[in-house]
Amino acid sequence: MRLDPAQARGRFAAAPVLRLATAGADGRPHLVPCTFVIDDADRVAIGIDNKPKASARLRRLTNIGENPRVSMLVDHYADDWTQLWWARADGTAVVQRAGDDHAAHWRLLVAKYPQYAGQAQGGPVIAVTVDSWSGWSFA
Amino acid sequence: MRLDPAQARGRFAAAPVLRLATAGADGRPHLVPCTFVIDDADRVAIGIDNKPKASARLRRLTNIGENPRVSMLVDHYADDWTQLWWARADGTAVVQRAGDDHAAHWRLLVAKYPQYAGQAQGGPVIAVTVDSWSGWSFA
Repeated sequence: MRLDPAQARGRFAAAPVLRLATAGADGRPHLVPCTFVIDDADRVAIGIDNKPKASARLRRLTNIGENPRVSMLVDHYADDWTQLWWARADGTAVVQRAGDDHAAHWRLLVAKYPQYAGQAQGGPVIAVTVDSWSGWSFA
Repeated sequence: MRLDPAQARGRFAAAPVLRLATAGADGRPHLVPCTFVIDDADRVAIGIDNKPKASARLRRLTNIGENPRVSMLVDHYADDWTQLWWARADGTAVVQRAGDDHAAHWRLLVAKYPQYAGQAQGGPVIAVTVDSWSGWSFA
């Protein structure tokens, strides 16, 4: 059955990882798993490790520069198919590289993921304004 | 570290679920989790339940009709980030609705997933010729 937007958002928010789909000007989809938080303005914020040379040419960032539409998915698989569900957020992304909003997103990411402690923080953040929360659950 | 194509394909093939990204003529990415098999010709085959009215207007099928490029991802998350990995297959899709190849793909799907027994089979199959296997693993 379909999840309503609030249900989809709730299941999405509780997950530790999402999959981000972007597509550049050539229309080729690109897919990668990402850590994320949801901020007070209901945006999804995805952090990228601070490796300047590598992140400058990351396909996800190039694609967003060419086409800001993105789709993000959280899903649950189980051999018992009555347990299956997924939740999706579709929206429009911007890339933040500095500033108060960028810093606030990194604070949220570090608070959600203690694993970031001692790691490279402060890289680009992909901030997505969601215009559609959707989802499905067997049960 | 990067996985070589054979490693990426091996991890991908062993997974029970992938995430499929498509993008239509409008360039908007679309994302959904799917069951799948890999056939003897090294194609990824994704089955769609046989609900004619619903599947006729499924966004993934409409998108592939407009733009056959797809990306598919398998990933593993753990709180211990040294256990993280992902594997991706990028390629070109066709939609099969009948014929020997379509039937053979459904036989493989039913063999991999006993859950399909008694369920609606025989719906469209998305068959993807992969031109790039890639992946990453912390360890």
